[in-house]
Amino acid sequence: MKDAGLTTWVDQMGNIHGRYEPANSTRDALLIGSHMDTVVDAGMYDGALGIISAISALKVLKVTGKLQRLTRPVEVIAFSDEEGIRFQTTFLGSAAVAGTLPESILQVSDKSGTTLQDVLKMNSFEATSTAISQARYNPESVGSYVEVHMEQGPVLEALHYPLGVVKGIAGQTRLKVIVDGSQGHAGTVPMKLRRDPMVAAAELVVTLERLCKEPNSLLTYDEECSCFTEESLAGLVCTVGELNTWPSASNVIPGQVNFTVDIRAMDDQVRETIVTSFSRLVLQKCDDRLVDCKVEHKHSAAATHCDPELTSQLKRAARSTVSAMPGRTVAAGETPVLMSGAGHDAMAMARLTKIGMLFVRCRGGISHSPEESVMDNDVWAAGLALFNFIDQNAVSEELDAGQNVVAVALAVAES
Amino acid sequence: MKDAGLTTWVDQMGNIHGRYEPANSTRDALLIGSHMDTVVDAGMYDGALGIISAISALKVLKVTGKLQRLTRPVEVIAFSDEEGIRFQTTFLGSAAVAGTLPESILQVSDKSGTTLQDVLKMNSFEATSTAISQARYNPESVGSYVEVHMEQGPVLEALHYPLGVVKGIAGQTRLKVIVDGSQGHAGTVPMKLRRDPMVAAAELVVTLERLCKEPNSLLTYDEECSCFTEESLAGLVCTVGELNTWPSASNVIPGQVNFTVDIRAMDDQVRETIVTSFSRLVLQKCDDRLVDCKVEHKHSAAATHCDPELTSQLKRAARSTVSAMPGRTVAAGETPVLMSGAGHDAMAMARLTKIGMLFVRCRGGISHSPEESVMDNDVWAAGLALFNFIDQNAVSEELDAGQNVVAVALAVAES
Repeated sequence: MKDAGLTTWVDQMGNIHGRYEPANSTRDALLIGSHMDTVVDAGMYDGALGIISAISALKVLKVTGKLQRLTRPVEVIAFSDEEGIRFQTTFLGSAAVAGTLPESILQVSDKSGTTLQDVLKMNSFEATSTAISQARYNPESVGSYVEVHMEQGPVLEALHYPLGVVKGIAGQTRLKVIVDGSQGHAGTVPMKLRRDPMVAAAELVVTLERLCKEPNSLLTYDEECSCFTEESLAGLVCTVGELNTWPSASNVIPGQVNFTVDIRAMDDQVRETIVTSFSRLVLQKCDDRLVDCKVEHKHSAAATHCDPELTSQLKRAARSTVSAMPGRTVAAGETPVLMSGAGHDAMAMARLTKIGMLFVRCRGGISHSPEESVMDNDVWAAGLALFNFIDQNAVSEELDAGQNVVAVALAVAES
Repeated sequence: MKDAGLTTWVDQMGNIHGRYEPANSTRDALLIGSHMDTVVDAGMYDGALGIISAISALKVLKVTGKLQRLTRPVEVIAFSDEEGIRFQTTFLGSAAVAGTLPESILQVSDKSGTTLQDVLKMNSFEATSTAISQARYNPESVGSYVEVHMEQGPVLEALHYPLGVVKGIAGQTRLKVIVDGSQGHAGTVPMKLRRDPMVAAAELVVTLERLCKEPNSLLTYDEECSCFTEESLAGLVCTVGELNTWPSASNVIPGQVNFTVDIRAMDDQVRETIVTSFSRLVLQKCDDRLVDCKVEHKHSAAATHCDPELTSQLKRAARSTVSAMPGRTVAAGETPVLMSGAGHDAMAMARLTKIGMLFVRCRGGISHSPEESVMDNDVWAAGLALFNFIDQNAVSEELDAGQNVVAVALAVAES
């Protein structure tokens, strides 16, 4: 980030910052961020692509002499722990900046019993709640937050378009379902005498899928909702990612099976209806099978909406970038507008300021997988779109005519 | 076993033997055995109960002076590793005695890569194939094998009867089903674009249950079989005891799910039809869901039938035992005759000699579970039934009138 002319520092939650502060600016800052961590056994793009794009954009601003003409502070933040894999709690870095981390966060522990505090100390951070609160930004000092991220879905690829703008991030509910039955010998308990939690859990996994694909076939009269339109259903996704059996031996009918449920939708009413209906179906099907079921609510977050003005500025920036790419003509309004099914640091930052997001096309919509892949040109397009966005919204007009930004950007890339 | 007047030794597979050899006998031996090991987190009865009963019976024979009047050698064997938990291969001890262990067995390894050979060496055995072959019995030296085991099922309890005889042991097929789909982000892949191995596997688990409960609803014309009678269906059980997901994170659509299948039936044709039909259904349902499935055959064993003569001798012995118990009158043929859904050392011993089995009632049919429970009196009944069996079939008649065996047995118990 120093190459891009930025002042850099690491805060007490491990976020890396690079900031350009115009000499006489009194305006609030434009923050541009994304995260550095990934899930286990995944590709290297994900959020890191957003950080690279932001640094590239600022480097081009510097090379083109526009950095000195910024009308407001611009800051790049590479957030720590967004995925929440180790501590099962997402957005640690961005929530610290947004000031929404609870004091108790330091005592959260991983599977081996190591706390977040232990890990921060091992990495030479102070790891006190006072230190962490220093990472917090004053909302009045921040004007907006923009994030570039890999799409992690198949829409842009299907549209043959490198960039898209995001109108909002889906709300999410995470459940854990625990099914208790009668453990027994696989050879000696007749089928009709079994209380098998494995078959009950399997039935629930199949039911969850059906509920998310055709809710109207399973909702009761009480649960019916006019919210289930073709568009809202397209944005509804339900996943069982983890399922554990106990004692887990091929010749033993399990005594317990538990599994995770992840439900996401742009429409909060859709999501809440699905959660209610699924919880009812769990109890009903468990009653039928004489097994005991419990549904634990682990996490719930409402949908987050992007700021319409930022979104339309990003859309213009993306459009002028793509139209400048060789061999492509851009029709009016062509930049695709997407929903984000995945959570992002922007969700945490929305508690601090207004947000906008740009998505980058990926191959096959594959994410959180070693097969994850993004084209180099698309990462460049994202960097240039950010450059255009800053140029159009935070650079003074003087001396700005006629520069060939793409040529400069390529020169930067080769340097 | 020494207390019971037996000569004892441990063989090269860790089986413990105790044998009484009549001075001038040229007859083949009666072997009485069961196993010492249990599954993880289970009760203490299972096979151990069979060993205790056998030793008790011989102790009573000794105390009543009948041991010296045995007309044939009688030997108790406490077999090692029957469950096959660590090395995923059952009947190690009894197969060594029956002489059916392959040479390659020493190289089989557990999950950590430790081989059976390593483990035997750590326990001071020679662990060579020559040493193991010394454990083998000459079929001509053995006349019959009898085993007492906990029922591990609910039938005797339902009949309010402490003992039952076994007419056969169900055949078994163990499969592993591997379902490969597209790993992806739980929030970004629309439901209709998913190739989710979790839902596919869940559907297969539910299908397996239905196939075993109502095969006729799923069999094709080719698979139809007159073998599905009410009786054969009662002896058919299908279990998924283990199911693993990869990468197993709540916010990731799994890339792979695999699960075990355990199918058992007394009628081999029933079992084979179910295996064929399930394998077909796996491929069919996986095709429908565009996931890739593989069915691996891990183990297959035909049903084993007990020797009718031994069975009727055991039945008589059980009947005279139960009729001698205070407060109980026994109608003709009352000793229940059961199928065994579980595998037993007797299956391995059936390759060496004719077999007979006696089951002991347990609570709630629960087995392979910490809830496993057997009444003390029922263990005593088993020991006395074995005593009666030996007395009626391998003790010379002289000087035998008028002894009160139950009184002597109780005196032994208190000694």
